[in-house]
Amino acid sequence: MTVNIIFVGNLKESFFEEAVREYEKRLGAYCKINNIYIKEQRMSEKPSEAEIAATLKKEGDQILAALPSRSYKIALCVEGKQLTSEGFADVFESAANNGYNEISFIIGSSCGLSHEVKAACDKRLSVSMMTFPHRLMRVILLEQIYRAQNILGGGKYHK
Amino acid sequence: MTVNIIFVGNLKESFFEEAVREYEKRLGAYCKINNIYIKEQRMSEKPSEAEIAATLKKEGDQILAALPSRSYKIALCVEGKQLTSEGFADVFESAANNGYNEISFIIGSSCGLSHEVKAACDKRLSVSMMTFPHRLMRVILLEQIYRAQNILGGGKYHK
Repeated sequence: MTVNIIFVGNLKESFFEEAVREYEKRLGAYCKINNIYIKEQRMSEKPSEAEIAATLKKEGDQILAALPSRSYKIALCVEGKQLTSEGFADVFESAANNGYNEISFIIGSSCGLSHEVKAACDKRLSVSMMTFPHRLMRVILLEQIYRAQNILGGGKYHK
Repeated sequence: MTVNIIFVGNLKESFFEEAVREYEKRLGAYCKINNIYIKEQRMSEKPSEAEIAATLKKEGDQILAALPSRSYKIALCVEGKQLTSEGFADVFESAANNGYNEISFIIGSSCGLSHEVKAACDKRLSVSMMTFPHRLMRVILLEQIYRAQNILGGGKYHK
């Protein structure tokens, strides 16, 4: 299985970068992680609704252009469905059972994702009602993917 | 406000340690973070229900002995109530309005928290339906506390 992680904006903090590298290393035994970086658009200090919408549209166009079309596509957004770690593991199993050998996760910028991106996805997933920085979200997502592979493989990581 | 973070088991990964230090530094302007470390009990490879219960009881006794009695006490557990980041910020405001100058958060070990600990708390909070490692949970909690202080202070961190 190839797992594409599409994210807007890069990691600023070295500790988040190191955490991402560590989980990618651990995941090496299970799947191929393919990072797709989308440049975050600059906004003014106090952006208007219209400016935010225009920014999301621009970022969204880049995401849609980069999104591997034959993958099972999951948008991370607060209004998505929450799953337990076991339920999240089932997503991988069911994607594989449905003939997918590629899953794409999309993490938006601090303003979220455009409607077009969400509409192009097969699933909307919410991790929490809380708002996390997108850098931390990448760490959380990778840890959950690692946990999912362990759950499916009967490993001891998830108790 | 003093914020006590009571956690079972230490940070193994240096990047989580660094992340915790960074958020503690950022929080320095807002509150005093007081870390209270509880030693994780060793368990066998495949612990029975009884062994898990005994372990939680032992860890729980240590937590209860360390728990500052005059603080507003919050247990982090999956069956707790989920809040948005704004709702989480309200917890700090409402605790202050009710005369508390100390809040305690309790993060359990991989097996959770004992009933006694949960019963001793004023609130049960759930961050996600997903299971996170307790080390990552410390980072998430500190980031949310930092976000909460920014929300209350009208900062630009939370959009």
